[in-house]
Amino acid sequence: MTEIVYDVLGIGNAIVDVLAKVGDAFLSERHLIKGSMTLVEAAEAGKIYADVIPERQVSGGSAANTVAGLASLGADCAFIGKVHDDELGQLFQRDIGAAGIDFFTKPLIEGAATGRSVVLVTPDAERSMFTYLGAARKLTKEDIDEKIISESRITFIEGYLWDEPSEHQAILAACEIAHRYERKIAFSVSDISCVEKHRKQMLEFIKQYVDILFVNEAELMSLFQRDDFFEVLEDVKPLVEIAAVTRDSRGSVIVNGREKIFVEAEKIRDVVDSTGAGDLYAAGFLYGLVKGRSLGTCATIGGITASEIITHYGARPEVSLRGLVRHRLMEYGKKP
Amino acid sequence: MTEIVYDVLGIGNAIVDVLAKVGDAFLSERHLIKGSMTLVEAAEAGKIYADVIPERQVSGGSAANTVAGLASLGADCAFIGKVHDDELGQLFQRDIGAAGIDFFTKPLIEGAATGRSVVLVTPDAERSMFTYLGAARKLTKEDIDEKIISESRITFIEGYLWDEPSEHQAILAACEIAHRYERKIAFSVSDISCVEKHRKQMLEFIKQYVDILFVNEAELMSLFQRDDFFEVLEDVKPLVEIAAVTRDSRGSVIVNGREKIFVEAEKIRDVVDSTGAGDLYAAGFLYGLVKGRSLGTCATIGGITASEIITHYGARPEVSLRGLVRHRLMEYGKKP
Repeated sequence: MTEIVYDVLGIGNAIVDVLAKVGDAFLSERHLIKGSMTLVEAAEAGKIYADVIPERQVSGGSAANTVAGLASLGADCAFIGKVHDDELGQLFQRDIGAAGIDFFTKPLIEGAATGRSVVLVTPDAERSMFTYLGAARKLTKEDIDEKIISESRITFIEGYLWDEPSEHQAILAACEIAHRYERKIAFSVSDISCVEKHRKQMLEFIKQYVDILFVNEAELMSLFQRDDFFEVLEDVKPLVEIAAVTRDSRGSVIVNGREKIFVEAEKIRDVVDSTGAGDLYAAGFLYGLVKGRSLGTCATIGGITASEIITHYGARPEVSLRGLVRHRLMEYGKKP
Repeated sequence: MTEIVYDVLGIGNAIVDVLAKVGDAFLSERHLIKGSMTLVEAAEAGKIYADVIPERQVSGGSAANTVAGLASLGADCAFIGKVHDDELGQLFQRDIGAAGIDFFTKPLIEGAATGRSVVLVTPDAERSMFTYLGAARKLTKEDIDEKIISESRITFIEGYLWDEPSEHQAILAACEIAHRYERKIAFSVSDISCVEKHRKQMLEFIKQYVDILFVNEAELMSLFQRDDFFEVLEDVKPLVEIAAVTRDSRGSVIVNGREKIFVEAEKIRDVVDSTGAGDLYAAGFLYGLVKGRSLGTCATIGGITASEIITHYGARPEVSLRGLVRHRLMEYGKKP
């Protein structure tokens, strides 16, 4: 049996987040849809950039945020994703390296630029993302490193990796390798737009490969085209080993065979920016899991790490998540 | 710190169960209430006995059943309860000793006879209990052995011990000792009639002393005089560390701080006699707890042990619970 080197390997879009605060009018004037993720072409992306004043540029991407959270908690992580060897690509590499994450994917040296996501934050703390994927969508089967996957306890895949057939082939190759080595596949549905575009294929994928599913309530309802939350929990039960269903201020529900575990959300005074809440929930949850904690405690840790990320701009932690989690778990009378 | 000798110490009524099958008419002709526990005096008890053909005489009592279940699972247990040094009293002592449970309480040598419970099982598998407590209710503070309590990780108390002020004093003394030694108190509400008689005092007791509460759905609703199950789960949350709420074929719900864990029931073909289901659920649950299992697994084990007891007459296991639980947990993909 191959040895475990990494707790979690993330596979996802390697993109740089450009954060900007705007008023509601900024969106409505441009007929931009609020609260979701919209893919844009290079030209349109350029136009939106030109109109905003960037608050900050920081490495992002859903699965990359999750492994960054895991690294902040003290887990050993790696990442697979595609950048261009340009300025933003170098920024991405520096950031992920500084977070202590192994990242070996070869950058593009020609063609599309490094992906970027303009995250417009309105006064209600909602995020609207306009993403130019660029180099990120050029991930192929050739980037899927068998050795790294075989050495990772859990391979975490984001649902955004679904648009290009070549990306999809890359995901399937990763899943096949992971299961051949008896490793677990965790998958995040990422966004309701991904479900709506790929429902049937996604359900099939979840059923065939996914061990641990991260999904929010709206995505789950859309996945099964249901309107009853308790029924949809029964739908998802036979498909995966563990489903972690997030519900914003109502906490999360973990479905695991014969158990359904309802865990309350953290109490939060001000939500500043919900970017990365799902990614960091997954980070906390997976950290609990690799540490052998109970599923209820995994969900609690996920709630704690998600709560940190939404009290400031950006999807990367601003405090030591490890210290925060230890402190909070003690408050809740749990082993830190 | 005193060393732990016992996983669980039970304190309860030491009674012998007399099991008999009767038709529904037997109850209605005698104006006996079905499905509950009715206390009777010596004379009335004698009259019911005279009219039934006992199927079996076996040591019973709620907390005694629980520690017998725990012993069958492999836990180290002790029991405190009062018998008379008569034939049934000796039967009780033999049975509990044979189950491997330490039992040192001095028997009465005069006064009331050993308690007995006529359990009438109707064709619908419902049990109606007519209990003459006799010697059992003579338990006093003097029987509460500080050493045994200090050496027990958990002291489990049944709610039936509530009628005599001297018994109540004994319980309170046990709780004070347990908490002085930083041990846990588990308490089973036992029966809805106990709640109805002692609601206010019982709530106060739970709040002040109980760490782990066993209660069924109807008892819990009665305790808080509510008719909404989800609301009542919020009511009980701040009172105890763990509440295990049983719901018959709908499984059980564990309330533990910020977590509510819904666990499905075992699938059972034929319920023969529901006597002892709650007692054996508590046994399985506490066994999981002393073994450090997750609360979901504790509830699963409780469901398994309860399911064994209701497929035959009597409240003591007829197979090795240890083997049964190992086998079932493996079926559910859990560590045995």
